[in-house]
Amino acid sequence: MRGIGYGGDYNPEQWPESTWAEDVRLMAEAGVNLVTVGVFSWSRLQPAPGELTAGWLDRVLDLLADAGIGVDLGTGTASPPPWLVTEHPEILPVTADGQRLAPGARQHYCPSSPAFRAAAADLAERMARRYARHPALTMWHVSNEYGCHVPACYCETSAQAFRDWLRARYGSLDRLNETWGGAVWSQDYTSWDQIQPPRTAPTFANPAQQLDFARFSSAELLDCFRAEREAIAAHSQNTPVTTNFMGLHRAVDQFRWASELDVVSMNNYPDPADAESYMLSAMACDLTRSVGGGRPWILMEQAPSTVNWRAVNVPKAPGQYRGLSLQAVARGSDAVLSFQWRAAATGAEKFHSGMLPHAGTDSRVWREVAGLGADLGRLAPIAGSQVSAAVALLHDWESWWGLELDSHPSRLHLVDLLGAFYRPLFAAGVTVNFAHPESDLSAYRLVVVPALYLVSDAGADNVRRFTANGGTVLVSFFSGIVDPRDRIRLGGYPAPWQDLLGLRVEEFAPLPAETTVRLDGVVGWPGLSGSSGLSATGRLWQDVIGLRGAEPVLRYASGHLAGQTAATRHSYGEGEAFYLGTLPDRVTLRGLVAEACGRAGVEFRTDVPPDVEMVRRGEYRFVISHLDREVEVDLGGKSRDLLSSEIVGPGVVLGPRGVLVLSSRD
Amino acid sequence: MRGIGYGGDYNPEQWPESTWAEDVRLMAEAGVNLVTVGVFSWSRLQPAPGELTAGWLDRVLDLLADAGIGVDLGTGTASPPPWLVTEHPEILPVTADGQRLAPGARQHYCPSSPAFRAAAADLAERMARRYARHPALTMWHVSNEYGCHVPACYCETSAQAFRDWLRARYGSLDRLNETWGGAVWSQDYTSWDQIQPPRTAPTFANPAQQLDFARFSSAELLDCFRAEREAIAAHSQNTPVTTNFMGLHRAVDQFRWASELDVVSMNNYPDPADAESYMLSAMACDLTRSVGGGRPWILMEQAPSTVNWRAVNVPKAPGQYRGLSLQAVARGSDAVLSFQWRAAATGAEKFHSGMLPHAGTDSRVWREVAGLGADLGRLAPIAGSQVSAAVALLHDWESWWGLELDSHPSRLHLVDLLGAFYRPLFAAGVTVNFAHPESDLSAYRLVVVPALYLVSDAGADNVRRFTANGGTVLVSFFSGIVDPRDRIRLGGYPAPWQDLLGLRVEEFAPLPAETTVRLDGVVGWPGLSGSSGLSATGRLWQDVIGLRGAEPVLRYASGHLAGQTAATRHSYGEGEAFYLGTLPDRVTLRGLVAEACGRAGVEFRTDVPPDVEMVRRGEYRFVISHLDREVEVDLGGKSRDLLSSEIVGPGVVLGPRGVLVLSSRD
Amino acid sequence: MRGIGYGGDYNPEQWPESTWAEDVRLMAEAGVNLVTVGVFSWSRLQPAPGELTAGWLDRVLDLLADAGIGVDLGTGTASPPPWLVTEHPEILPVTADGQRLAPGARQHYCPSSPAFRAAAADLAERMARRYARHPALTMWHVSNEYGCHVPACYCETSAQAFRDWLRARYGSLDRLNETWGGAVWSQDYTSWDQIQPPRTAPTFANPAQQLDFARFSSAELLDCFRAEREAIAAHSQNTPVTTNFMGLHRAVDQFRWASELDVVSMNNYPDPADAESYMLSAMACDLTRSVGGGRPWILMEQAPSTVNWRAVNVPKAPGQYRGLSLQAVARGSDAVLSFQWRAAATGAEKFHSGMLPHAGTDSRVWREVAGLGADLGRLAPIAGSQVSAAVALLHDWESWWGLELDSHPSRLHLVDLLGAFYRPLFAAGVTVNFAHPESDLSAYRLVVVPALYLVSDAGADNVRRFTANGGTVLVSFFSGIVDPRDRIRLGGYPAPWQDLLGLRVEEFAPLPAETTVRLDGVVGWPGLSGSSGLSATGRLWQDVIGLRGAEPVLRYASGHLAGQTAATRHSYGEGEAFYLGTLPDRVTLRGLVAEACGRAGVEFRTDVPPDVEMVRRGEYRFVISHLDREVEVDLGGKSRDLLSSEIVGPGVVLGPRGVLVLSSRD
Repeated sequence: MRGIGYGGDYNPEQWPESTWAEDVRLMAEAGVNLVTVGVFSWSRLQPAPGELTAGWLDRVLDLLADAGIGVDLGTGTASPPPWLVTEHPEILPVTADGQRLAPGARQHYCPSSPAFRAAAADLAERMARRYARHPALTMWHVSNEYGCHVPACYCETSAQAFRDWLRARYGSLDRLNETWGGAVWSQDYTSWDQIQPPRTAPTFANPAQQLDFARFSSAELLDCFRAEREAIAAHSQNTPVTTNFMGLHRAVDQFRWASELDVVSMNNYPDPADAESYMLSAMACDLTRSVGGGRPWILMEQAPSTVNWRAVNVPKAPGQYRGLSLQAVARGSDAVLSFQWRAAATGAEKFHSGMLPHAGTDSRVWREVAGLGADLGRLAPIAGSQVSAAVALLHDWESWWGLELDSHPSRLHLVDLLGAFYRPLFAAGVTVNFAHPESDLSAYRLVVVPALYLVSDAGADNVRRFTANGGTVLVSFFSGIVDPRDRIRLGGYPAPWQDLLGLRVEEFAPLPAETTVRLDGVVGWPGLSGSSGLSATGRLWQDVIGLRGAEPVLRYASGHLAGQTAATRHSYGEGEAFYLGTLPDRVTLRGLVAEACGRAGVEFRTDVPPDVEMVRRGEYRFVISHLDREVEVDLGGKSRDLLSSEIVGPGVVLGPRGVLVLSSRD
Repeated sequence: MRGIGYGGDYNPEQWPESTWAEDVRLMAEAGVNLVTVGVFSWSRLQPAPGELTAGWLDRVLDLLADAGIGVDLGTGTASPPPWLVTEHPEILPVTADGQRLAPGARQHYCPSSPAFRAAAADLAERMARRYARHPALTMWHVSNEYGCHVPACYCETSAQAFRDWLRARYGSLDRLNETWGGAVWSQDYTSWDQIQPPRTAPTFANPAQQLDFARFSSAELLDCFRAEREAIAAHSQNTPVTTNFMGLHRAVDQFRWASELDVVSMNNYPDPADAESYMLSAMACDLTRSVGGGRPWILMEQAPSTVNWRAVNVPKAPGQYRGLSLQAVARGSDAVLSFQWRAAATGAEKFHSGMLPHAGTDSRVWREVAGLGADLGRLAPIAGSQVSAAVALLHDWESWWGLELDSHPSRLHLVDLLGAFYRPLFAAGVTVNFAHPESDLSAYRLVVVPALYLVSDAGADNVRRFTANGGTVLVSFFSGIVDPRDRIRLGGYPAPWQDLLGLRVEEFAPLPAETTVRLDGVVGWPGLSGSSGLSATGRLWQDVIGLRGAEPVLRYASGHLAGQTAATRHSYGEGEAFYLGTLPDRVTLRGLVAEACGRAGVEFRTDVPPDVEMVRRGEYRFVISHLDREVEVDLGGKSRDLLSSEIVGPGVVLGPRGVLVLSSRD
Repeated sequence: MRGIGYGGDYNPEQWPESTWAEDVRLMAEAGVNLVTVGVFSWSRLQPAPGELTAGWLDRVLDLLADAGIGVDLGTGTASPPPWLVTEHPEILPVTADGQRLAPGARQHYCPSSPAFRAAAADLAERMARRYARHPALTMWHVSNEYGCHVPACYCETSAQAFRDWLRARYGSLDRLNETWGGAVWSQDYTSWDQIQPPRTAPTFANPAQQLDFARFSSAELLDCFRAEREAIAAHSQNTPVTTNFMGLHRAVDQFRWASELDVVSMNNYPDPADAESYMLSAMACDLTRSVGGGRPWILMEQAPSTVNWRAVNVPKAPGQYRGLSLQAVARGSDAVLSFQWRAAATGAEKFHSGMLPHAGTDSRVWREVAGLGADLGRLAPIAGSQVSAAVALLHDWESWWGLELDSHPSRLHLVDLLGAFYRPLFAAGVTVNFAHPESDLSAYRLVVVPALYLVSDAGADNVRRFTANGGTVLVSFFSGIVDPRDRIRLGGYPAPWQDLLGLRVEEFAPLPAETTVRLDGVVGWPGLSGSSGLSATGRLWQDVIGLRGAEPVLRYASGHLAGQTAATRHSYGEGEAFYLGTLPDRVTLRGLVAEACGRAGVEFRTDVPPDVEMVRRGEYRFVISHLDREVEVDLGGKSRDLLSSEIVGPGVVLGPRGVLVLSSRD
């Protein structure tokens, strides 16, 4: 594979061998140069413990190699075969309610199960030994979507592993009891074997225990990955290893995981029924790029059209497959793969669209698939280049787990909050990275902190330092509330950032669903009142804010807090800090974010038409319309479009879901 | 019993023996001539394993015989007694989640349990031996509502029985693996004992496995029925045997079962709170008649007024008990029974209405009960006659199970779809049979195929042949998609009927709930645009249709498919085929169905007032008003009304919920 | 403690010993004189079986004693420590679904567990031995919120205890079978060990079994309480013993329990997001006073502001903590405590507000806490005085359990129905007691009977006698339906009160949710038609009423029952009886209640402003505004306000959430 990779999951074992030649021929026709093979093939690779019976796979790889198609080779461990379950029923995972899940679907394994880990590593090792030097081999694909269906297991094996993990983390029960708040509700442990996973209890389980169990579960899954990676490494050192992440997916801490992957890859399934899905999709791309530290990544799976697992599975609109594929490239992906090459005829995914649909090549989907192959061929110069961003959204899986614990002031959903802040930046053509709170922020001008409930001392200091050194920070409510033990940082909220923000939050007054509070812009902030007028509102949350140096930007205008401060600005060192005690309506929030960008020196474009995406990768500027009609865009000058090879601009009319890839060198 | 049977479930064991004489006296007063006894009497018939202690039942049957009241005698096996559960706790059924259900209600048995089957057969055999020659005995009533609360059991006994059933069906694991798509998600079995029921798994269980489990579960329940029937046959050969079906009930394949019953009977519980319940009720009657091959059937249970098991249990309106009872007779029933004779004072069903209510005989319900007895007496000439139909709705339990599997393009509910097509036919006085796809269709002029997801080659051929021979067929979206293995029929949908329909469906584009697409009638189909005007809409589904000979009838007029074909007509052999790629609004669908009827030569009356039912049985025409006010009906001539013995027509004003039974001989 | 007690739960074990001095200093500052200690301290009091390691608690109690602060000392048994669960895993409770609940939260014990009971009694005994003579000791606080999370356990131990309880109750299986209706659904038991708790079954479990299980579960919890109380009594006889009830809480029969408590206490958590929560709160206060027989009681827990366990936890409005605290005093409480003193930093309750919030003393909450302390100091003269009432709402836990069983005509919720009748009385300044149906009613003028589904013969006679002797009674639909066996009282409803009411209900016609029936006032009841005009409606229920002497008051004006009677009045002996066959809209119901009060000679004030509460305790009259704005109130004369020491009236403007405590002596 050179240039941009293109292809999808290829499951030849589902089809008679007679179809394979047609597959390869059509792959060539569509410009496919990379396919993922073997992800779910365990029962066909190893019908019984012991040797591989993989002659069929040899033949498949040979065919692909002959056609110059690279293979992202699965270790085949994503779904344990029936014989393994029968031999080791204890590998089946158990829910928090104590229900042992059955085989018959996929991912039916306890991540801590020694029997599962041994069998998976054994298969991975056999695969590596056999195929390490196969000419088709391009990449190793370990397992599949870790934690998708079984983010955590609550069985006795997991319980013992949890105890071991805790013992390693805390050393002593005293420290564990102190951390978990054992004095609350009589939960002091006097022996390690008393500790259980946070199984369903009469009421709320200990939140620190829940948080540690989320950490543990991510770590156990990572150990599963490591075991396979190491089994591969025994035979194959020079082929990159990946596993497919799932974008904004809670189960695994991608910041911790990504450093263990040679290539970061991601499955992306935005819902075509959601008119704003391109925005969530872009966010997932940016996250994936960010966890990989900016390296080019791989869009490992997407749907050519429909999926099969929603209640109602709407197809992608004409052009939407292309638009979202090019979005991924624009945001740093070096390959565009789909699940799956040929739509299945049997099994639970048979109504998931394929690049080659049930209807065959005389179909819209196939025509779009072939068209994209040609497009990607034209984008070869982009491969390997990087995306840079002046704005960071702080993100931390540990804080996410903490934020969404039960027994909180209200139920906040991180993805919604990230989206709320991402939306205006996206719409203004501002590229965003996701940054871990303890990471180096010096490259950013603006850092946005949406509901970073949990923050370490180091993370808190990092944000303060960033601001003191001239950065601009925009912090939302329910940030900086607890330390990594899920222990309240006392003294008014957010305790570590009161000096930074010039305020102290005394109380939380969350708003019931469907309830809003009116907001008034403060005099001197005409930009805000101009943008939101008299109809500004907040929802979801209200902080009761006491000013300690900050100037008010918004005030509550209804309810018990009428007249009190709802949002602020504060100078801190060389920089300045904004704070939001509620979630303003979209127009008002956009005004605030624009203001923060303006002060931070981040270009915030107000001339990007709605539903048009603008993003720069390396020397190229992508303009992607997510509209089903024509739209006029001002390019600001003339450029060459890599897709059409034409010179366009300064004004251009993009067709429905049209895309331009503009070279800045022309 | 001569003429039309009348009565209900009689549970004398719930009452002191002193009330029995009053029961029999009141039965006579109400015209009752048939009661069902003993259905739930196991614990009173057999307080311990071994002999019957049924002296009380002897006395009950003697009393009834003396009064000339026939008995539909239960085998008493519907609810296992406590001693059996204690002795054989393994008979308790287990849910897909692995929860073993408790005793304390009813139907708490695993259909595959040898202990349960043996105990049930033993009781049935003892009952048959004791009562085979009792003068009251009219019919045997095996068990009750098979599969109502426990349509399937997932315990280990069931798992083993499932394996045996699969081995008998497939012979080899290779064939099973091929059929179930073992290559998908690593599910190839290498030993029969690896196979499990489709218990709750981390995600979607194998759909072919689910489908086979539905077949198996229906078959296991049928084996339970057979075991009792055979135990009866050892002592009683000349008395008909039945069990009560439940109308549009998914659990048991009534087409397979009905041939094993001497008489088909049905429980019918339309919800009085649903203004259209009479339509669903009529559909259940037609289905019951159809599965029995047109034989007269028995309305085994209905509620005189309220039931007890809905969240809110609304009573039947005045006259509604009569109207729905006579509807059953009109649609082929030879008996009208209710649950239950005397409203219970204890237990879970004490708020279920009885023919004799808590309030006693000075009550509306009792007066209606007695009135209906008199009415039914007048309908004796009708008993035994048949209902004929020119239109068939294709129906197949296997397709139903397949249609409602998970991981589909959208969630379709067969009963709703059947109702959508049944509604306009019912409203136009068109009588409908339900026909199995492989059955002889030659008696029909129009065959409607609503979402027949799964069809065998024989079924597909059958429909083609029917049309080629001059029939008219109306096929909806998502028909002909898979074969009996739940395997996609490849090459565009519906693969077996593309020639028949003159089109190919390339993609599905289901519509989210609450979303509609605008539809335009095609020029040349003024009847349609006239009936639906500019406001025609589709919902639920959209097929992407490529024409291959068919002419368009409706086009999508909004959304991504605007301008494309939504419905078609195609000539095929001597007949013609209509296709619907979406579910049109009621007016538009009615127009299409009327058109199809017109072309098929089926009389489609447009002068039937709304909520008035017209149906012919033998030589009699029933006119049933489901309105709470008067309504004028044009009878087209003079006839004698069997109920009032008066000559009525040609115009007649029916009172609220009035009924006429018109003799065509007068 | 003298005067009104003030304080909250104090959990010093959650904090370093260095903070304790500050706690005591701030308690003094806030006027705190009573704190609850040790409720959840088991794991800190007894880290292993055997002796107490309670040195820390000694020091806490000494500190409190030195500061003159009384202690309500927990027995510490509310949450079993990990070592006990590990040693006796069988103490963990099991749900109706068979799921064994995990430790890690609280209240994870089976109430029938011998191991749990022994361990709890052992701890209580050790605590009593150690602290019986401690100068701080003011009261014993046994366990916590019995039945809150685990109202019943379905494990095998519970099953055996249930059998023992049943054997004691019924003596013979014949009587049990007769009572439970064993003839229905084949449920006759032939051996005690066949009986199970009403675990989840294929459909509705036997309702009499469910009702007995609710009785049993309340009794088992009471036995837990008794065991601890007796363990205390071995060392401490003169200190009152309490446990905290939860107001309108279904699990425990407070009428049975209250006589076993020296002091009745209650936790009250009205939802500040509910605009009417002050009314529900008042109802809980009246219930608590009533179960205690009118004795002064203790508000044991409330939230200073937010709780943590709702989906959205709204803070109390400014002044609301004060208003609701004084409401409790007005309605008979002699102490006002909160959960908890210092807001926790860890654990599941860390976002539950504390008297001393995370933000510290510079906070609204703290200022209100300190302010209330001063207010309560001024109310010392009120302590010990009683509240009297001329109106009783009949209430019985057994009837509640019966009313909310499944398989009923409709789903009624007792708390909603109690609230419907309480609302107009509250709004008119009428104080209400809750009375058990068999209790002495002679002190009342009006008795209201809302949906008293189950009534004993004695209870039914009691109501008849009360009316015959000149009382006025107002009975709602679905009252007097069953006897204590949950057996229908036959012969039309309500069988025991047809003579009293002058009517017979023949059928129930419940209304679906969102459905209403129009009502017409009957001529001669102009007060009603005047109050409700043409828009009177009923909802939820309709009785089909046959008059037998009563005069109609309301008639149905739509639906099948149009023209029939909906509500009645009837003279009976010296008194009169009203009956409601539906639930009228608020205005109409208020009119009826006003009329009943007028005829009963109960003062029903129509000049109380909305959201203003008026209630008399002893010689003092409380006027409590629940409004966030000013309101004018007519006091009818001049009085001294105990809170401000000022003379006020006759007219007065109350500030937002203002409170007056008026001495009738001034």
